[in-house]
Amino acid sequence: MQVTIVHVTVKPDYIDDFIEASRLNHELSVAEPGNRRFDVLQSADNPTQFVLYEAYENIAEAAKHKETDHYKKWRETVADWMAQNRTGVPYNGLFPA
Amino acid sequence: MQVTIVHVTVKPDYIDDFIEASRLNHELSVAEPGNRRFDVLQSADNPTQFVLYEAYENIAEAAKHKETDHYKKWRETVADWMAQNRTGVPYNGLFPA
Repeated sequence: MQVTIVHVTVKPDYIDDFIEASRLNHELSVAEPGNRRFDVLQSADNPTQFVLYEAYENIAEAAKHKETDHYKKWRETVADWMAQNRTGVPYNGLFPA
Repeated sequence: MQVTIVHVTVKPDYIDDFIEASRLNHELSVAEPGNRRFDVLQSADNPTQFVLYEAYENIAEAAKHKETDHYKKWRETVADWMAQNRTGVPYNGLFPA
């Protein structure tokens, strides 16, 4: 399992918009054949801090996600709502395999 | 869904031991009734860096995890293998709800 943990800081005025755009991205991403998880999290301590937890069968399936229309739409839609550049850190999922 | 993202840095000599102890913790944790995910990840760039991604139905179920024998055993077993104190950050899981 290939996992990317993406951290996003959203401008306070766009929190609700970001949540709605990410809900759409979640719903279409979990329908991708190689997807295992696409969780959208909001910090319990700071409502401007979000995490996208994106798990795919392997690196090839994770790469396919970035070619989808819904990913491209999400990326463009939320670009101006971010307070700073988002960061994505890759991990090898050991368990489950 | 209540999520805690735990970051662990392991001493290089104990990487394999940590993986085995965390495999056991994973297997018993996913069998808890309130558990949604208990993913064990290793950094793709630095093999000493691990993440435990722990998702529960709600805060009460997450709290119950810390009362289990397998959690207490894992915590004691890995204590001396960590290069520094682990950190756990709580999140509200928005999607899936």
